Amino acid sequence: MAMYVYKFGGTSVGTVERIKAVAEKVKAAHDKGDQLVVVLSAMSGETNRLIDLAVQIQKTPVSREMDVLLSTGEQVTVALLSMALQELGCPACSYTGGQVRIETDSVHTKARIKSIDDVKIRADLNAGKVVVVAGFQGVDVSGNITTLGRGGSDTSAVALAAALKADECHIYTDVDGVYTTDPRIEPKARRLDKITFEEMLEMASLGSKVLQIRSVEFAGKYNVALRVLSSFSEGRGTLITYEESEVEQALISGIAFNKDEAKLTITGVPDIPGAAFKILGPVADANIEIDMIIQNVADDATTDFTFTVHRNDFVKAREILTNVCNDLGARAVTTDDSIVKVSIVGVGMRSHAGIASKMFEVLAKEAINIRMIATSEIKISVVIDEKYLELAVRALHKAFELDKEPKQVGA
Amino acid sequence: MAMYVYKFGGTSVGTVERIKAVAEKVKAAHDKGDQLVVVLSAMSGETNRLIDLAVQIQKTPVSREMDVLLSTGEQVTVALLSMALQELGCPACSYTGGQVRIETDSVHTKARIKSIDDVKIRADLNAGKVVVVAGFQGVDVSGNITTLGRGGSDTSAVALAAALKADECHIYTDVDGVYTTDPRIEPKARRLDKITFEEMLEMASLGSKVLQIRSVEFAGKYNVALRVLSSFSEGRGTLITYEESEVEQALISGIAFNKDEAKLTITGVPDIPGAAFKILGPVADANIEIDMIIQNVADDATTDFTFTVHRNDFVKAREILTNVCNDLGARAVTTDDSIVKVSIVGVGMRSHAGIASKMFEVLAKEAINIRMIATSEIKISVVIDEKYLELAVRALHKAFELDKEPKQVGA
Repeated sequence: MAMYVYKFGGTSVGTVERIKAVAEKVKAAHDKGDQLVVVLSAMSGETNRLIDLAVQIQKTPVSREMDVLLSTGEQVTVALLSMALQELGCPACSYTGGQVRIETDSVHTKARIKSIDDVKIRADLNAGKVVVVAGFQGVDVSGNITTLGRGGSDTSAVALAAALKADECHIYTDVDGVYTTDPRIEPKARRLDKITFEEMLEMASLGSKVLQIRSVEFAGKYNVALRVLSSFSEGRGTLITYEESEVEQALISGIAFNKDEAKLTITGVPDIPGAAFKILGPVADANIEIDMIIQNVADDATTDFTFTVHRNDFVKAREILTNVCNDLGARAVTTDDSIVKVSIVGVGMRSHAGIASKMFEVLAKEAINIRMIATSEIKISVVIDEKYLELAVRALHKAFELDKEPKQVGA
Repeated sequence: MAMYVYKFGGTSVGTVERIKAVAEKVKAAHDKGDQLVVVLSAMSGETNRLIDLAVQIQKTPVSREMDVLLSTGEQVTVALLSMALQELGCPACSYTGGQVRIETDSVHTKARIKSIDDVKIRADLNAGKVVVVAGFQGVDVSGNITTLGRGGSDTSAVALAAALKADECHIYTDVDGVYTTDPRIEPKARRLDKITFEEMLEMASLGSKVLQIRSVEFAGKYNVALRVLSSFSEGRGTLITYEESEVEQALISGIAFNKDEAKLTITGVPDIPGAAFKILGPVADANIEIDMIIQNVADDATTDFTFTVHRNDFVKAREILTNVCNDLGARAVTTDDSIVKVSIVGVGMRSHAGIASKMFEVLAKEAINIRMIATSEIKISVVIDEKYLELAVRALHKAFELDKEPKQVGA
């Protein structure tokens, strides 16, 4: 008897008919004798409907109340799926995050899971029930409702799989796996059978949007086997694995991109110890996540300091930086929010030199100017002008032969 | 400094604009220094929208899941009102029933409140906040979400007023008070300044629909001063009082009616001890509420037994009664679901003979056949054919001079 956590996103439970289809899928697995915990998002459109209501009342809604509001979306779907399962004769029981209970910190709208009480769920599973849990939500130590941020249902699913030591965590979505890049940009994009956690982490954080980054981190940390599948078709999807040797032997596995970033530079920063902290401390204090950071070589006694943030945080970050600029006696703040980050990702690049130079060569041939570069062991990212996105992705996809089936291990 | 519990129904919070209007009303009272707990229903239409979703999935949705589903409606409105208040600079905090916590029994969709923890609410009130509580809902001892049934938000408000020993509980609705009868049936219906709890109890239970019956019972039991007012206009509304002497000196205060009942008769019941229990026990076990009961005089060794139930429970009650009929060896079950109950209510009738005969005379003059009669100290009810409803109400309203202002006490 295996135990699985299944997670279905908003599109998969977007209508009554789709909820019934999910119930059929879950019942089929339950009939085979598997123990199942099902984590759901809100019906697609519902979260936006609720946000629309809120912003009609407050331009920036109070975050505690926003969480009270938004958490209703998942509460609706878990009730409906539990009904649908019972209608099929499959015993089921729904839980909100607070009922489970999934305890988080108190950072409303961006909370992090601290602990999960598995007593009720285990009792239900042992009684032969399917347990249906509202994703995206929890409660803090005082019982205030919290949410994990957009895509947080993936995190809920992985955290539950970790707490319950489930055999696999299946993320059902509207794509049938992880692709070499976004097929809407490059129609020759190809589904990967397997991908390593590290690669997936880089792909997700760079905007591949198949999984929320925190869920992948979580899965890696707690050794949760994660599989991305389609809600609407059969197929094995893409397994996210820990074993590099199991993965297809390609130099790089995929090309990710992120259109949601903005770049900020503070120039003429006095080159003294602690300058970086004085710049980034206030940004971090404002709960703004920073992605790329580069500090240019000082040409006099000053340095230039550049970083990227999510575009939603751009205005706030610029405001903070302007104050910092005055405090530090730096020269100026320059910004650009029409940039895009393109990255090539692959564990294969570890053992191969020249990947970076090949990437830069491909971009140079297309006359694409590189504005920032950042590298890790398995990833090279460049920031370029937004308008070059499609051109860059297609050129790199072709140059690294991602449209061709790789050699299989042991084949 | 006075403490009030305000309750706003679904129509009063039916749109973003109305929620903002409620916030203005609440803020004005808060600015005067009053401590306020606000109880809300779901936005009008929302509960029906959720029920529609559920019945598309299950003809008779599992009641535990129905409660999980329906309780989201109020959770949305409390979050939105709390935002609206804070937008106006009025500190506020929302709570679900479970968060308060309002503990109920485990009878899903018809739960009864057992206890209310006032610690969080008192702390917030003392901190100068308006406390916004989701009506209609609670949790049972195991933390399962429960609902109190339609109109349960009134009960929540009164129970909170009792627990907090509030000065008054204001029920804001789309009518500006309690009327002598439904103005849609009799345009000459007149608003009452005061009405006794007992009368209100009879009026509510008989279908006046201004307040849910259980809330009035609760208010009476815990001496909560209840006032019915309009959300949309100014005015003092109708105060529900304990003191008969304070009330207008009319023979009767109002005419109530109920179109939601059905009548069931079991004939030829062997006239032995325990027969009534054998008939009504199974009905009560099925959680069906019984309203009127009459047992006709036995003409042989058998009796006829008639009672009324809500039309929603009619089919179920008929099924149960058919089984009971066989078990008891009774003759037959006859039913009628096109009846209506009309009642005259008034503490004044206690000290006046002849009210009943006057009522029957008025109906006889209009050639309306009376099918059942039931009386209490302050109420006389008759069951008549549905088609005579308007005729009966208008004739009685006129005969008892309800369209005229009564003499004021001490005037």
